[in-house]
Amino acid sequence: MTGDVTLYHWEPNANSGKPMLTLVEKGVAFNSHYIDLLAFDQHKPEYLAINPMGTIPAMTHGNRLLNESTAMMEYVEEAFPGPAMMPEDPVDRWRVRLWMKFLDQWLCPSFSMIGWSIFIGPQVRARDPEELKAAIDRIPLPERRTAWRKAIYGLFSEAELAESARRVARYRQAGGSAGPARVSRLQPIFAGRHQLLQLGLWLAIDAA
Amino acid sequence: MTGDVTLYHWEPNANSGKPMLTLVEKGVAFNSHYIDLLAFDQHKPEYLAINPMGTIPAMTHGNRLLNESTAMMEYVEEAFPGPAMMPEDPVDRWRVRLWMKFLDQWLCPSFSMIGWSIFIGPQVRARDPEELKAAIDRIPLPERRTAWRKAIYGLFSEAELAESARRVARYRQAGGSAGPARVSRLQPIFAGRHQLLQLGLWLAIDAA
Repeated sequence: MTGDVTLYHWEPNANSGKPMLTLVEKGVAFNSHYIDLLAFDQHKPEYLAINPMGTIPAMTHGNRLLNESTAMMEYVEEAFPGPAMMPEDPVDRWRVRLWMKFLDQWLCPSFSMIGWSIFIGPQVRARDPEELKAAIDRIPLPERRTAWRKAIYGLFSEAELAESARRVARYRQAGGSAGPARVSRLQPIFAGRHQLLQLGLWLAIDAA
Repeated sequence: MTGDVTLYHWEPNANSGKPMLTLVEKGVAFNSHYIDLLAFDQHKPEYLAINPMGTIPAMTHGNRLLNESTAMMEYVEEAFPGPAMMPEDPVDRWRVRLWMKFLDQWLCPSFSMIGWSIFIGPQVRARDPEELKAAIDRIPLPERRTAWRKAIYGLFSEAELAESARRVARYRQAGGSAGPARVSRLQPIFAGRHQLLQLGLWLAIDAA
């Protein structure tokens, strides 16, 4: 089975971590193909030939391409044997999907915005401006081009940053902090390679 | 079974139409409880007692509350007998979820923004300003309060409107226009009551 599944991912966290954790918990062997998000490898021709959307994570299973991390998680759950990752009762399954939507649309984009604003953006902006412009021009989806331009050049508005800070604060107030412990289960797979950027962000926010 | 399922909805379209079409296609009898979105009934205490999020659609099944339209559709599929609304192959199921995400996050918010910008917003703004302010102050979720304020007072930026127009144009270019035919299947249930606002929007965009 190992030769059959390949996961294309950045750090083993956030969106990349979602299908990866599901594969690990299901006991599905897979090839790990690291895509350096900060070198914009996800928009280079060799990766676009695999996933034309230019997003990570993506996964191949035989000759099938899967992308969009939450939909990928449901695919892994349904396509492979192993321990069930979803509860049985339809109302509990509805609740899982409600939380996934909350994470995907409400909480995680705010974490990402703060991460880019505080420490990823400034690092990336220190690079050659021409190289950055070329990297942005290469992005296939216009809305992703806009999103990346804002992230790279730090163009988030005061209102956007305030709303993101409010959401993260609201999440912490509710006691949320399961991220690092969960993500740490992936470390043996990726020891010495991942930069722990977003894991660091979780810790930084918890320490704030 | 009829007494057991109640759907709280606005017009039988868009987000309200999603679980409604699923119930109809599954053959599940349900009570229809109309919520007048333009009277902001969804933020009034009697509805918040049912769905504290103050969003529509919502559904009760016995003493269970379900909300979030796409998660509700999967619930209806899994909780009731009737014809299968999901394909069997995991890769086809992944594709359904990919398209639902595309609709929920990419296309439909743009339709909604254009609808509010062109003809719903101007109608609503003609009302008593004090009444509008009170309606907005009553909204329980801060991010929904912000979204409603923008919709009601027409505070969408040029960039936001341009991006929405681009998405709708991109959708039309791809041949998309299944909305009205599908929604029309719901008309016998709601004859004489719904205002066909958003259905009108579909048609207006198709005629543009």
